[in-house]
Amino acid sequence: MRRAVVLLSGGLDSATCLALAREEGFSPVCLLVRYGQRHAVELSAARAVAASLGAPDVREVAVDLRAIGGSALTADVDVPKDRTEADRAAGVPVTYVPARNTLLLGLALGLAEVVGARDIYIGVNAVDYSGYPDCRPAFIAAFQALAALATRAGVQGERFHIHAPLLQLSKAEIIATGLRLGVDYALTSSCYAPDAQGRACGRCDSCAIRRQGFVDAGAKDVTRYAPR
Amino acid sequence: MRRAVVLLSGGLDSATCLALAREEGFSPVCLLVRYGQRHAVELSAARAVAASLGAPDVREVAVDLRAIGGSALTADVDVPKDRTEADRAAGVPVTYVPARNTLLLGLALGLAEVVGARDIYIGVNAVDYSGYPDCRPAFIAAFQALAALATRAGVQGERFHIHAPLLQLSKAEIIATGLRLGVDYALTSSCYAPDAQGRACGRCDSCAIRRQGFVDAGAKDVTRYAPR
Repeated sequence: MRRAVVLLSGGLDSATCLALAREEGFSPVCLLVRYGQRHAVELSAARAVAASLGAPDVREVAVDLRAIGGSALTADVDVPKDRTEADRAAGVPVTYVPARNTLLLGLALGLAEVVGARDIYIGVNAVDYSGYPDCRPAFIAAFQALAALATRAGVQGERFHIHAPLLQLSKAEIIATGLRLGVDYALTSSCYAPDAQGRACGRCDSCAIRRQGFVDAGAKDVTRYAPR
Repeated sequence: MRRAVVLLSGGLDSATCLALAREEGFSPVCLLVRYGQRHAVELSAARAVAASLGAPDVREVAVDLRAIGGSALTADVDVPKDRTEADRAAGVPVTYVPARNTLLLGLALGLAEVVGARDIYIGVNAVDYSGYPDCRPAFIAAFQALAALATRAGVQGERFHIHAPLLQLSKAEIIATGLRLGVDYALTSSCYAPDAQGRACGRCDSCAIRRQGFVDAGAKDVTRYAPR
């Protein structure tokens, strides 16, 4: 079986990505990146997701981005709550982590070289998160071009394929795909500001988009929410 | 003064890069990356270099790559010694860290966004280290293209410039440049396997290339070597 590195965050999108990688016949090597984010809850969610989808090879890399700062997810900035769709459409959100996907894909590329994988899965999504520059198709294409130049395998004529299967899907389509493939979304955590028990706030952008996704998919929202 | 992020390793090349960034009129923000490498000696060298070149803004990011492995610089693989020039020309060396420069530039790009810099300096060198795929001009160009797509600043129409001023220089030319700009190479550490006192082994590829560089530059080799 061919191996693929799957970036796994513990969120809904990357869990779906992992299920897709398995369906496409890959033996996944899951890469968890602890990037100084405030919600380590995500990482235990990621391990639970990997176990439930039969992907026992899980690697964790720690990157301490606090010295860089610049995001509500890594620095001491409040996560905005109760924003409308219009607010979200207005620009790059404060939860944007500078150059995050460049970094995540760089780590995934290094791991891919070491384990002999030529395929990398990342759960970016251009529809819901249009505010994040590094979730666009052009970014993924540029990284794939870089990967061929950046690696020993590339020098030897091999090519890496960056899979972003959720790129053009709505949240509802992602959820429908995952449910078809047996993803247990109760294990996933998407909230930017979960409580100590890992329960979702229900009010940040990520919670709002996720909640609407379940509605649009006609599926039961299995998210554990904190009491308001 | 415009700011520039300068990747500083503590080695001879990046010290020269920092001096060039200053000469070109930039106010440098030095980025040290502790990537689980065995020789933390390099990092104290980097701090000494920054201080001596009047660059007080130093940020350190830790990335633990040991879960990825795959290199004599991060994993438990012996650094090769006493190799000839022909050995070195034979291919990618075991000291190649998978996707290292992708990762380093990704971190530098994130920091550049946060501090408002649009210029990044990296001391890669295509002549001496031809075995490293991510030290080639095509790699630098591809990363620069990626940077425009990967960032909030890029979305807003700004461009990043990746400076690799040593790319086409020989080691002797690098040393001559640095000496002209006042770099104190006694502060730098290039060895892949320094001893506990930070003294160079004199026998790894990096020591061999550095030693020959001083000879070719007609300059005194100020490296502190361990007794053989």
